[in-house]
Amino acid sequence: MNFYDNPKITDPKGFTGAAMHAGFKRKRKDLCIIKSAVPAKCSAKFTTNAVKAAPLIVAMENLRKTGNRLQTLIINSGNANAGTGQQGLNDVNETLRLLATQINIPPELILASSTGVIGHRLDMDKMRYGIEHLARHLSVEGGAACAEAILTTDTVTKSFGLKFTANGKKITLCGITKGSGMIQPNMATTLAFVTTDADIDHDFLEKSFSAAVEHSYNMITVDGHTSTNDTALIMANGLAGNPTITAGSPSGAIFEKALFMLMTEMAKSIVRDGEGATKFVTISIDGADDFADARKMAFGIANSMLVKAALFGCDPNWGRILSAAGMVFAHFDPAVADLRINGIYLYRHGEPLSLNNNEIEAMMAPVELNIVLDCNLGEASAVVYTTDLSYDYVKINAQYHT
Amino acid sequence: MNFYDNPKITDPKGFTGAAMHAGFKRKRKDLCIIKSAVPAKCSAKFTTNAVKAAPLIVAMENLRKTGNRLQTLIINSGNANAGTGQQGLNDVNETLRLLATQINIPPELILASSTGVIGHRLDMDKMRYGIEHLARHLSVEGGAACAEAILTTDTVTKSFGLKFTANGKKITLCGITKGSGMIQPNMATTLAFVTTDADIDHDFLEKSFSAAVEHSYNMITVDGHTSTNDTALIMANGLAGNPTITAGSPSGAIFEKALFMLMTEMAKSIVRDGEGATKFVTISIDGADDFADARKMAFGIANSMLVKAALFGCDPNWGRILSAAGMVFAHFDPAVADLRINGIYLYRHGEPLSLNNNEIEAMMAPVELNIVLDCNLGEASAVVYTTDLSYDYVKINAQYHT
Repeated sequence: MNFYDNPKITDPKGFTGAAMHAGFKRKRKDLCIIKSAVPAKCSAKFTTNAVKAAPLIVAMENLRKTGNRLQTLIINSGNANAGTGQQGLNDVNETLRLLATQINIPPELILASSTGVIGHRLDMDKMRYGIEHLARHLSVEGGAACAEAILTTDTVTKSFGLKFTANGKKITLCGITKGSGMIQPNMATTLAFVTTDADIDHDFLEKSFSAAVEHSYNMITVDGHTSTNDTALIMANGLAGNPTITAGSPSGAIFEKALFMLMTEMAKSIVRDGEGATKFVTISIDGADDFADARKMAFGIANSMLVKAALFGCDPNWGRILSAAGMVFAHFDPAVADLRINGIYLYRHGEPLSLNNNEIEAMMAPVELNIVLDCNLGEASAVVYTTDLSYDYVKINAQYHT
Repeated sequence: MNFYDNPKITDPKGFTGAAMHAGFKRKRKDLCIIKSAVPAKCSAKFTTNAVKAAPLIVAMENLRKTGNRLQTLIINSGNANAGTGQQGLNDVNETLRLLATQINIPPELILASSTGVIGHRLDMDKMRYGIEHLARHLSVEGGAACAEAILTTDTVTKSFGLKFTANGKKITLCGITKGSGMIQPNMATTLAFVTTDADIDHDFLEKSFSAAVEHSYNMITVDGHTSTNDTALIMANGLAGNPTITAGSPSGAIFEKALFMLMTEMAKSIVRDGEGATKFVTISIDGADDFADARKMAFGIANSMLVKAALFGCDPNWGRILSAAGMVFAHFDPAVADLRINGIYLYRHGEPLSLNNNEIEAMMAPVELNIVLDCNLGEASAVVYTTDLSYDYVKINAQYHT
C-alpha cells in the first residue's frame, strides 16, 4: 500500500469541496467546506483541554444528537473561536444555520471547526459572505484547496491519500491536517480530517480510528501544549459500494492498516513543519516496564526545553536526555540503561562511553535524529516524534498575534 | 525581620570557609569548602530525578549513617559528576577521604556537592590540588567567596542573611544558592546551602526545613527540567548558645518565619537570574478546588513554551494562558474563570473583555508581571515564580557545552 501523488480530501466518492480567502487571515485562504453527498458515519476526537473552543462544544452536542452522523465540514483558520464565552457559541450555531440553508441539509449534520488566535470573536459578516460564496462552488476539484485553507503558522499543506481494495471494491482514504505550534495531542490534536468512501461498520470505524489516533497524533509534540481546538475526525460515506467492512475480517485488517499508515504520516507531517523546527527527532524508549512509563519518558525528553535547545545547537550534552527521562516519575534505573543516537552508543549499562565532543557533535548534525533509550527493565516501548527548539520558535511565538 | 547587607554563609557562629579557581571551569571560582567547628544537625533534600548524581548517592548513604549530622561541605561547579557510573562514586569517596585527612574529621561528616555538565568524569588531580589549598585557608572571611564558587550559568551571586532573637539569644541564619537553567524543583532544586548557629530540636529542624523547601524552591521553574544534582540543605551547629528551639514554641514560630523568608528570597533570586530571562513572572492561581490542582495549573502556565515566548514578546495572546491552565487535567471551568495581569482584567466570568491589542501589550511591558487566574471554584491557591523564554535561553542552551 503506497501513498499516491496529489491527493485531495474530496477524492473518495461522493465528496465535494471549496475553499477561499474570506478575510479571517490577511492573505491566505482561510475558509473551506467539505461535503459528502450523503450523511456519513463519523468518529471524532476532541481536545482534552478543559478550555474547549465554542465549535467543539457545539459539535460534541450535535454528534450525540445524530448518533455520530455527519455530512458537511466548515473550517476556518485565523480565529480559534475559543475563550469567547456565550457569543462564541451563538456564532457557531449561526454559522451552521447559514450553511444549512444554503445547502439544504439539517444544521446538526454540519460540523464547524476553527483554528487561530484565542479570545477574539468571529467576524460573522466575513463568515456569511464566505458561506454564500462557497456553497455555490462545491466540486471534486474544489477539494484541492481545502488543505491550504485550514493552515495557520504551517509552512506547507499536508494532504495524503491511499487506495486499497476491500471486499472486492476500490476504497479511497484521504486526510488533510494542520498544525505547527501548540502541539501536544491528547485524545486528538490540532486539526485532522479524514474522508473515505468505504462502507464500514460504525462501531469498528470508531474503534479503529481511536486506535490510530492513539498511536499517531497522540505520540507527537512540538511544544507540549495541548490546544483548545484539537479535533481529529473521519467521515465514511459508504459510496464505494463495498460489502460492509467489519471488525476481525481480512478487509477490516486492511482498513486498520491503511488508516494507521495515513494517520501516522499525517501526524509526522505536523512535526516536520513544527514551528521553527530544524530537526525531525524520533525518540524511542525500549525495555520499559509498561507503555505508560515508556510514553512518559519519551515525552519527558521530547518536551524538555533543555534537550530541545541542545538538539538545535548540536550540543553534545547528552546527559540532559538521561536526566529528562529520570525526572518524570517512571521506573528508570540509570545504572542499567543504554543511550544511543543514530545507532551510536553514548552510554551503555550505566557507564558513559569515551567519545569526544567533536565525535558527538558530528553524530548530532543530521536533520533526522533517532534517539533510543533502552531501560533494560522490561518489554514495553513507545515512540514519540518531536522537533528541536530554535530561535525561530521563540520569534514566531513572541510575535504571533501582531 | 529584615535581610542584612553583605551576608556570608560563614556569618553564623562557628562556620569558616574558603573558595578558589581549581580549574573545573575556565576562569571563575569553582571549588569551595564550608566547615562548622562542631558537627551540625542537618536536614537535606535531594532531587527526585531517578538519575541522581554520584555525590547525592554517597551523601544520602552517609547522612543515614550519621543520623543526619554534618560538619563540612565541599562544593564544585563546572562538572556535575552525574551519569558517570561507578567511577563517579569512587571519585566522591576519594574526595571525602582526601578532605577528611586534611581537616581531621571523619569522611562521613563531609558532604560533596557538584554542579555543571553531566556525563564527564571529575578531574581528580584538580580536586586533590584544590582540597590541599583550601584546607589551609579556611576562615570566616573566606566564606564570602563561596557564593561565587557554586555558580554555573548564573550571572550574579545569591547570598542572603537574617538575624533574629530566639529564647534571648541572637541567631544568624544565612544561605547561598545557585541556579539559572534546568530549574524545576521537586523536593529540592539546584543547590541551596543554609547555615545557622541556632540550637534547635532536630525533628523540628527537619519539619520546618521541609515545609520551607516545599513552598519556596518547589514553587519555582525556569524550564520545567528537574536536575540530577538538586540539593537543598541546612546545617544548624547550635553555637549561638540559645536554649533549644522546639516545635510549637514562640521561638519555633520565629525560626520558621525566618527560614521561610530566607528560602523564598533565595528561590526567587534563582528565577530573577533565570537563563536568558527578561521577565520575573508571578503566577497565582486562586479559587481552585485544592492546592494540588492550583499547583498543577500554575506550573502548566509557567512551563508552557508558548506562554513564555508570548511573555518575552509582550504578545497580547492571553488565550494561551487560559489554555495552559486547561490542559493539565485539573478541575477548571473556563465559563466561570477570571484572568488578570498586573491588576487589569482580560477575561471575567468566562467572557473576554474588550481591550485592544495595544492596551494589552502595554499591560505586558513591565519586567515584573503578576498573572492571576481565579477559578472561582473553591478556596485553594498556589503561587509559582517563573521567567519568559527568550532567544538568549535558546542560545545559552544550544551552546552550553562548548
